[in-house]
Amino acid sequence: MRSVEEHRAALVALVSPLPPVRVALGDALGRVLAADVVATVDLPGFDNSAMDGYAVRSADVAGASAASPVVLDVDGDIAAGDTRRHVLRPGATMRIMTGAPLPEGADAVVPVEESDGGVQRVTLMLAAESGRHLRRRGEDVRAGDVVLRAGVRVNPGRLALIAAANVPEVSVAARPRVSVVSTGDELVLAGSSLDHGQIVDSNRPMLMALVEAAGAELVGFGHLADDAEAMAALLADVPGQPDLVLTTGGVSMGAYDTVKEVLTASGEVEFSKVAMRPGMPQGAGVVGERRTPIVTLPGNPVSSYVSFHVFVLPVLRALAGLPPEAATTEAVASQGWSSVPGKVEFTRVVLEGGRVRPSGGQGSHMLGALAEATHLAVVDAATTGVSEGDVVRLLPLVGEN
Amino acid sequence: MRSVEEHRAALVALVSPLPPVRVALGDALGRVLAADVVATVDLPGFDNSAMDGYAVRSADVAGASAASPVVLDVDGDIAAGDTRRHVLRPGATMRIMTGAPLPEGADAVVPVEESDGGVQRVTLMLAAESGRHLRRRGEDVRAGDVVLRAGVRVNPGRLALIAAANVPEVSVAARPRVSVVSTGDELVLAGSSLDHGQIVDSNRPMLMALVEAAGAELVGFGHLADDAEAMAALLADVPGQPDLVLTTGGVSMGAYDTVKEVLTASGEVEFSKVAMRPGMPQGAGVVGERRTPIVTLPGNPVSSYVSFHVFVLPVLRALAGLPPEAATTEAVASQGWSSVPGKVEFTRVVLEGGRVRPSGGQGSHMLGALAEATHLAVVDAATTGVSEGDVVRLLPLVGEN
Repeated sequence: MRSVEEHRAALVALVSPLPPVRVALGDALGRVLAADVVATVDLPGFDNSAMDGYAVRSADVAGASAASPVVLDVDGDIAAGDTRRHVLRPGATMRIMTGAPLPEGADAVVPVEESDGGVQRVTLMLAAESGRHLRRRGEDVRAGDVVLRAGVRVNPGRLALIAAANVPEVSVAARPRVSVVSTGDELVLAGSSLDHGQIVDSNRPMLMALVEAAGAELVGFGHLADDAEAMAALLADVPGQPDLVLTTGGVSMGAYDTVKEVLTASGEVEFSKVAMRPGMPQGAGVVGERRTPIVTLPGNPVSSYVSFHVFVLPVLRALAGLPPEAATTEAVASQGWSSVPGKVEFTRVVLEGGRVRPSGGQGSHMLGALAEATHLAVVDAATTGVSEGDVVRLLPLVGEN
Repeated sequence: MRSVEEHRAALVALVSPLPPVRVALGDALGRVLAADVVATVDLPGFDNSAMDGYAVRSADVAGASAASPVVLDVDGDIAAGDTRRHVLRPGATMRIMTGAPLPEGADAVVPVEESDGGVQRVTLMLAAESGRHLRRRGEDVRAGDVVLRAGVRVNPGRLALIAAANVPEVSVAARPRVSVVSTGDELVLAGSSLDHGQIVDSNRPMLMALVEAAGAELVGFGHLADDAEAMAALLADVPGQPDLVLTTGGVSMGAYDTVKEVLTASGEVEFSKVAMRPGMPQGAGVVGERRTPIVTLPGNPVSSYVSFHVFVLPVLRALAGLPPEAATTEAVASQGWSSVPGKVEFTRVVLEGGRVRPSGGQGSHMLGALAEATHLAVVDAATTGVSEGDVVRLLPLVGEN
């Protein structure tokens, strides 16, 4: 039996990274940076006022107080967005707005709240040491600084930083194009009336959602009956020229496992038992003239879901040019549970108040517990279970916030 | 000065919940359920085999072992998807595949690994007590069970459960339609060459990203110069008939604060100082004949970002028919930091290894630190800071996974 790591490595080896793409700022949300972002301007771009008030030479207001105010001529206003270059003459002041450029010669701002609000002449009731209520050019970021590193996902705050750094487009990891195909005569669409032995195809919508939530692009999807000839024809030339094909079902030891039958005949797909639970029957290889990578997932919905996280996500990351392994976290178990020795157990767990517990029935057909889960706990093959208080490694779920 | 809670309550009171909408399963990813989802079928829908193997009457294989195997006639095959109703005669067996319906009369399955794999007659080398390797009808979910509660976000695992429960469409919270307008003569688009005093408009792309990441819909956006007449005309009849208008800039105490000037004149927008940092100058009310709710955010990017989380998100949740307050979490501070007494401080923090620390410079113009943050820490107005080891309340960032 293969180890999880061996099978994952074999899958990742099937793909080469796609070249990064350049996108405009407005299309960058949620994408992963493929190159560092370098500021082209200082932030702030100029010394400016942190308050609405009066720009002063600090020496001119030394010792000012409510009891002993200082009165200065007001030489005009500077608004945010004023692009003129003002010069403040000694003994005078200028009204200045938050974010407006500091006039040459000024070295502090007295807030409007500490004045009589004068327009021609103003009474200032507070001293201001040099630098007071100023934002200095470049104090946040300097032109040439790397403001974001490659590998980081663009969230709204980072988007603001990229914009402010005056960078109108960025290089991001490509979105792999993925086809999702469910197989099996027993599957019908949700909303159908079910005959004896039929079940609703939940794997296909689930895998489509996982592909989408993982930031990849769906380029074709459908359901195939257990018809070896039709399946062989489709897989020989998958519509939409995907970077990866995912199938679900038809890969266990059954006599009617059409995916296994068709792809074994092709000679370029290897089927393996992997030492894990759920998800033991796995297969991967290439199909068609374009030698498109294919991963065949088991038909049990929970097995398929776990296999996506353990095997498909690393492949998608590798296609995008990222390190295959996603980050894991850790938490303490609030109760124990058993696992089968010799297999890595991926337990659906709920992380609540910093502690984890199994989310319910762990059968590979049990979707109720899956729907409540927030993480997959990775329980080592060497152990026979988790005890209360153990530190458990957690894989985040794709699409879970 | 208003408290954060008072201002938030005033904003939430401006809106009425939009009616929920029905969407097909394929469009439900990421949406919030507006009604409970009730299973229309049992899961599993029928007793079925958990293994590839042989369906048996347990009495027929009692005592079977490698040393003393039992030989039975094989009366045929049952594949997954077989919709015929088979009956197992006493003393015989049928080959059965994983997920295939159990024939009437059978009460256990012997895995194929414990047999010689026979097709006409089979040698079984293991006994199976009644119920062994079966999945019972309804053991995961029963028809009529509530499988997901209103208020839950649809993730890929939940989508699978909805599908499997044979529910082809669901009722979800409406996506509010939002317009984002940045204001200020000093703002230019990213990629422009900057004159003295100009800055790149980072608020508009940031707010657009926040609106999108919060699950709302952008229906119009743009930039307005500090031209009171043009601004008044636009706000009197905002294009796209949004459910909410967001402006940024022009609301502090400056002499050129056009948003404040225009909307104060309208008489239906109230400007307030809110006891918080950053983000003190806030305004809200209604505009135009349609009396569209409007929230005026400050122009400092970090103030605007924080205000979105503290005030706009609750409004969007209220519009969607959800409880206004999003869930918060808690963590222990790994270092202390100071805050201003009398104001709620929203510190940009990084949660790492279960502990939080400030993410860097906390000036309201500092985007570098914002881009590293994972949460906003809420530091009470009553305190003067956080000490190492304190438990801190955390708001999650919109669009951060």
